[in-house]
Amino acid sequence: MNRLTLTALPGIPLIRPGDDLTAITLEGLERAGIQLADGDVLVVASKIISKAEGRLVPLADVTPTPEAEALAPYLDKDPRLITLILAESAAVLRTRPGLIIVEHRLGFVCANAGIDQSNVEGEDAALLLPEDPDASARRLREGLRAATGADVAVVINDSHGRAWRQGTVGAAIGVAGLLPLTDRRGDADLFGRAMRVTVLGTADEIAAAASLLQGGVDEARPIIHMRGVPYRRGEGSIRELLRPKEMDLFR
Amino acid sequence: MNRLTLTALPGIPLIRPGDDLTAITLEGLERAGIQLADGDVLVVASKIISKAEGRLVPLADVTPTPEAEALAPYLDKDPRLITLILAESAAVLRTRPGLIIVEHRLGFVCANAGIDQSNVEGEDAALLLPEDPDASARRLREGLRAATGADVAVVINDSHGRAWRQGTVGAAIGVAGLLPLTDRRGDADLFGRAMRVTVLGTADEIAAAASLLQGGVDEARPIIHMRGVPYRRGEGSIRELLRPKEMDLFR
Repeated sequence: MNRLTLTALPGIPLIRPGDDLTAITLEGLERAGIQLADGDVLVVASKIISKAEGRLVPLADVTPTPEAEALAPYLDKDPRLITLILAESAAVLRTRPGLIIVEHRLGFVCANAGIDQSNVEGEDAALLLPEDPDASARRLREGLRAATGADVAVVINDSHGRAWRQGTVGAAIGVAGLLPLTDRRGDADLFGRAMRVTVLGTADEIAAAASLLQGGVDEARPIIHMRGVPYRRGEGSIRELLRPKEMDLFR
Repeated sequence: MNRLTLTALPGIPLIRPGDDLTAITLEGLERAGIQLADGDVLVVASKIISKAEGRLVPLADVTPTPEAEALAPYLDKDPRLITLILAESAAVLRTRPGLIIVEHRLGFVCANAGIDQSNVEGEDAALLLPEDPDASARRLREGLRAATGADVAVVINDSHGRAWRQGTVGAAIGVAGLLPLTDRRGDADLFGRAMRVTVLGTADEIAAAASLLQGGVDEARPIIHMRGVPYRRGEGSIRELLRPKEMDLFR
């Protein structure tokens, strides 16, 4: 496969709780003139999954914990927001004013537990990550298969910072229908020797590629269709992307 | 821009010291039927830049340092290879058997100073990263402009591991003609509010997207042409991607 095409599906509306993302994706594909085919990949910004699944929490509904109250002056954050961040986290790795780096309850390391702050119609609210992004990806994959017959992969992506580099990149937080890692150990290179770089983070590269078109700006281009992605099919789970703690040198 | 196309240039030969990468890229574009246009991006695997620039060092030519000899049993690596890794590094961050995580002399954090081991025709050798990848990218960009008149960006990519995630992803180690970070602070979102995610790691997302087609397997697809990438033009340098040490919580 020598060519890879990414298309931002046009005309995706603002998403509200209960919206049917399968139907919205199918409508976007139709507007783009794309007929879904086996092996295609759909990348969906976690933000619209969260909105469809009703993960927007008004801060007025949150009672801050004493721990959050104690951390608030140093972190320079709303103690209700800190309460939500801690509730979504398995462990706090690092803090500095404005920033909490956590191990999310889903297992990955990210800033502020992936929680977006928002203000819709004057009300301060926090948008939590989907409850189970692998399951959200599976639902969309199965919905698309039921509607079109196509065997596609779905990746849910979010913007992640990195330990040593500036700028965020798209990272996978949920997958369905693809193995997130491509294990090439044992594949021969051009000279017939075994390979050195052995395990590729395919789902994260897909997430980063799609993010280029999503642009991070808003919800105008949250769903990206990709054709020509070399990936290995399988049930897949985001857990395969997580480095086991005993192999982690930077925790 | 709603569509992004990546093409792996076909028929790129094995690269030897002194090869003219501008000519080789132009020949690959011609084979692919692509006429270069303003705003296109070429992504080139660091490995072929290194080879063209003669960065292959036979291990037989390396005299191990006492420090490398002392580390060799624990690291389970050839002390001559360790000698080269340390010579290419500004600091050692972590070690475990088989692995040294360093701050490369170029400023980024990576495993084994980005050095590939190779065995060509029975001779053990190490392939170092390019001396100055930004300069390598600039040379290719200028060569392409001289030949075609097109104002393109060039990104040199390599496979990097991540602190907390399994699998390697393509990362930028040299850029020319684009700002590696897209700073959206102050841009308004759909509701007219200021944005939360503010600085996008565009060059790294480009590097990761191209890596999907390069596949990490060998040198068969080292040059990727991209059209439709949203990026901001500018001289650019990999240094802009490096998190300042005083902001680094994981060193």
